[in-house]
Amino acid sequence: MKDLDGLFTHFLRDIYYAEKQVLKALPKMARNADSEDLREAFESHLEETEQQVENLEKVFELLGLKPRGETCPAINGIIEEAKEIMDEAETGDARDAGMIACAQAVEHYEITRYGTLIAWAGTLGHDEAVSLLQENLGQEYEADRKLSDLGETTLNREAA
Amino acid sequence: MKDLDGLFTHFLRDIYYAEKQVLKALPKMARNADSEDLREAFESHLEETEQQVENLEKVFELLGLKPRGETCPAINGIIEEAKEIMDEAETGDARDAGMIACAQAVEHYEITRYGTLIAWAGTLGHDEAVSLLQENLGQEYEADRKLSDLGETTLNREAA
Repeated sequence: MKDLDGLFTHFLRDIYYAEKQVLKALPKMARNADSEDLREAFESHLEETEQQVENLEKVFELLGLKPRGETCPAINGIIEEAKEIMDEAETGDARDAGMIACAQAVEHYEITRYGTLIAWAGTLGHDEAVSLLQENLGQEYEADRKLSDLGETTLNREAA
Repeated sequence: MKDLDGLFTHFLRDIYYAEKQVLKALPKMARNADSEDLREAFESHLEETEQQVENLEKVFELLGLKPRGETCPAINGIIEEAKEIMDEAETGDARDAGMIACAQAVEHYEITRYGTLIAWAGTLGHDEAVSLLQENLGQEYEADRKLSDLGETTLNREAA
């Protein structure tokens, strides 16, 4: 992590690890969702995440590197919290709201990381990497927006 | 964390812990910033964070609770990464860019948490809490925007 090149590789490995942890967590979250809409949202984001992992592998390839993750304690902490909520909260709208909050924390972590990687890839002249990373960033923004809508519906049901 | 009330308290303690960790981390980040602008940005966000902690203490009070934090591994992970970068990267624009990236990850974590808390406080009828949390959220958005601008300037210098 001495210079911008090294920092870029570090953050790329960080987000690669994060996406792979999300891949593992999403099926459990989908199974535990109370509402059909939330289950479908998690399932469709699972498919997107598979594509995002492939995009990251292409970025590694463009840099002449082997795809490798680096443990990211932030994403582990967020996923751990989602598991606690699934274990402790009573099934229903409140638990769905809790899972949505955790999923949005994941999205925001990814949004900030992709934002950084895109800016740095531009500076470093990795133009093809910029496009691949932008594809991922766009999906994360859209996923976050969808989760906000679902969160609102869930809270309205809970309030009723 | 059984119902929405319990989840709200849990997330409030989580962000209270997070803000207090940020309070501890910011002076070191300010001291390590290479550019004057970045140092000032960290110092001014330190003052805001002190105010935000007070706002959160008011929210606890409104709910009849004693202010208490709950360990948040996500924020610890993000701050740990900032420390690694300060230790490992060479002083200068690249290291500043790395610190900016970590600070933006902090902001995004806080943005998503305040977003959730505001939505839930509304559903639970904690109207005064909504205003206090919105004040914090507004400052986090503004801090993130400022960091994006500083990041761009830093990368332009690095590229030159």
